[in-house]
Order: sequence, then structure tokens, then C-alpha cells
Amino acid sequence: MQVSELQWTQEEQKAAREAFELARQRETQTLIELVREQSSQVTALDDIWHLHDFLSARRHDMDGKYDDRHPGTLFSLAQLIKEGWLHRDDLQGLDSAKLAKVSVLARM
Amino acid sequence: MQVSELQWTQEEQKAAREAFELARQRETQTLIELVREQSSQVTALDDIWHLHDFLSARRHDMDGKYDDRHPGTLFSLAQLIKEGWLHRDDLQGLDSAKLAKVSVLARM
Repeated sequence: MQVSELQWTQEEQKAAREAFELARQRETQTLIELVREQSSQVTALDDIWHLHDFLSARRHDMDGKYDDRHPGTLFSLAQLIKEGWLHRDDLQGLDSAKLAKVSVLARM
Repeated sequence: MQVSELQWTQEEQKAAREAFELARQRETQTLIELVREQSSQVTALDDIWHLHDFLSARRHDMDGKYDDRHPGTLFSLAQLIKEGWLHRDDLQGLDSAKLAKVSVLARM
């Protein structure tokens, strides 16, 4: 599958950027709720460092995943679908060939 | 001031350990309250990473400060007094020479 040779129209690039932003907002909202929940339950220093470890991992993951300069857009979109932050309906601006590739990648 | 040459009785070592534990508990309780407060106010991803940065700094500081193998007990006790986690009254198990040195160090 030659993902790298696909041509992207300006509209598709815009649709991909909007889908990324949508996923980022959804994941952020879930993270905020998780942080509030975990924080309300801390009763010991170890609980706080556990929260710190959790945030370190989330930051590492999200910094990479939502980096605007990320080269592999289809791979990134597929990853977000796999994780549940995007649905196929959020990618309606892409042509059918790209949608098919994203679907295949998301099942890998 | 020859801090390193002071002799510590077993009782004094016990008193120092108890003072450390007291300070650790006080600082932990304050940190728990701060984390809950900060977490209740997060509304954006940057707020979460700000909390993460804050926890990274606190962890680095507390890991060093409350390390049981810390060699400079008088310096450490003085630091805790300076930061407000210990009071002179918490160190009643130490002899007057050590108390005086801790007081001097805490003013530096």
C-alpha cells in the first residue's frame, strides 16, 4: 500500500486537520475528566507520583500524536480511529481511496 | 562550623527520623490539597501539562529532600525549617549544640 504517494487536495488537508483537532479535543476532555477523578482520590504521596507517571505517559503520547508536523497523516488518522478518538464519519472530506486505506490501517 | 563531626546518639537519630517523617507528612498533605485544587481548575490541555510540570518539580525536590540516605541531616532539617515544614519544637530530641547549628543554617 503506497500511502506516501497519495495526492492530497487542499480540501482534504483541511478535513484532516479538522479531524485531528476534533480528536485532540475529545481526548483532552477525557484526560481532564480522568485527571480530576484521579486527583480527587489521592490520599498518599505514592498516589500523586502515580498521577505524575500517568501524565508523563499521556504527554509523551499526545505530543507525538498531535504534532502538526507529523508526516504520516493516514497512519495518524488510523491510530486515532483505533483508539476511539475519531470515527469514519469524521473523515468525510477525504476521498474513498484514502478512507479505505485508513480503514485497513485502523484494523492492523 | 564542623557539622560533619557531630556525634549523634541513637535517641537523636530517632528524633531526626521522626522529624523528617513529620515534615514529609505535612508537605504531602499540602501537596495533595494543591493537586486537588489545581486539578479542579483544569479546562485545557496546557493546564494539564502545567500540572505535570509542577509535579515533576515537586517530585525532584521531595525525592532528594526526604531520601533516607541523605548525608547532611542538619542541613536537611534546617532546610525543612526554612520551608516551614518543621518548627524548632519538632526537634526537641536533639542536643542544644545541634539545635543551635540548625537554627543558624535555617537563617542562611
